Amino acid sequence: MPHFILDERLERDSVSIQTLTLSDLRLAKDSRWPWLILVPQRVNVSEIFDLSPEDQMELAREQARIGAALKAMTGATKINVAAIGNMVRQLHVHVVARFEGDANWPGPIWGFGQAVPYEPQAFEALKAELQKAVL
Amino acid sequence: MPHFILDERLERDSVSIQTLTLSDLRLAKDSRWPWLILVPQRVNVSEIFDLSPEDQMELAREQARIGAALKAMTGATKINVAAIGNMVRQLHVHVVARFEGDANWPGPIWGFGQAVPYEPQAFEALKAELQKAVL
Repeated sequence: MPHFILDERLERDSVSIQTLTLSDLRLAKDSRWPWLILVPQRVNVSEIFDLSPEDQMELAREQARIGAALKAMTGATKINVAAIGNMVRQLHVHVVARFEGDANWPGPIWGFGQAVPYEPQAFEALKAELQKAVL
Repeated sequence: MPHFILDERLERDSVSIQTLTLSDLRLAKDSRWPWLILVPQRVNVSEIFDLSPEDQMELAREQARIGAALKAMTGATKINVAAIGNMVRQLHVHVVARFEGDANWPGPIWGFGQAVPYEPQAFEALKAELQKAVL
């Protein structure tokens, strides 16, 4: 039976911060916005509707829980949630904290500019804060 | 008790094609891509996690069902699903059929260019086809 292997671009551009029931919860290496990515640990799944009905419900629960925690923690103006996958076909859901006046407000984050790396200490601090917030 | 009123921008830019259990299913007036919008008929809801847990599950089901039907009907390369809402705060979920070589492939549709209106006959034909596909 094939086992879950993370797409190499997701592997390169984000770091795992927690393993949830269904998904690997990852933090993107882009300091322009607090940007989480949920990757359901399932094989050969590209669309949300490729998941089993049970996994679809679990993904919806994880996404809502993570979004609410991210908003409470950051005080974001709006949480943006999206499953796009035109470039990386392995199913992944973006959960992003947006703020008035951020790097592309009110436009979308996808396809906009280049990632701005975190300072290593700032990244570790945010990772720890997020791990606490999503418990 | 306040009742559901559709945001005026959603009203202007899309047309209702069916009323689902939770959501008003709408077709965007933009011929660049087959673009559906689910608007949960609830009051004062901006984030998915503002919905009750039951409504969140129903939205996930409607979104998956509509996405699968849209992909089967259009033969899309990828379905893009997103709840953004930086400009229109009433909760609405985009479900969009994307094709290699479309107007902004593989970039996102949001914030890209201007809507290209349908010919009235083409719009009515697509609306009828969609109504049949999502039954």
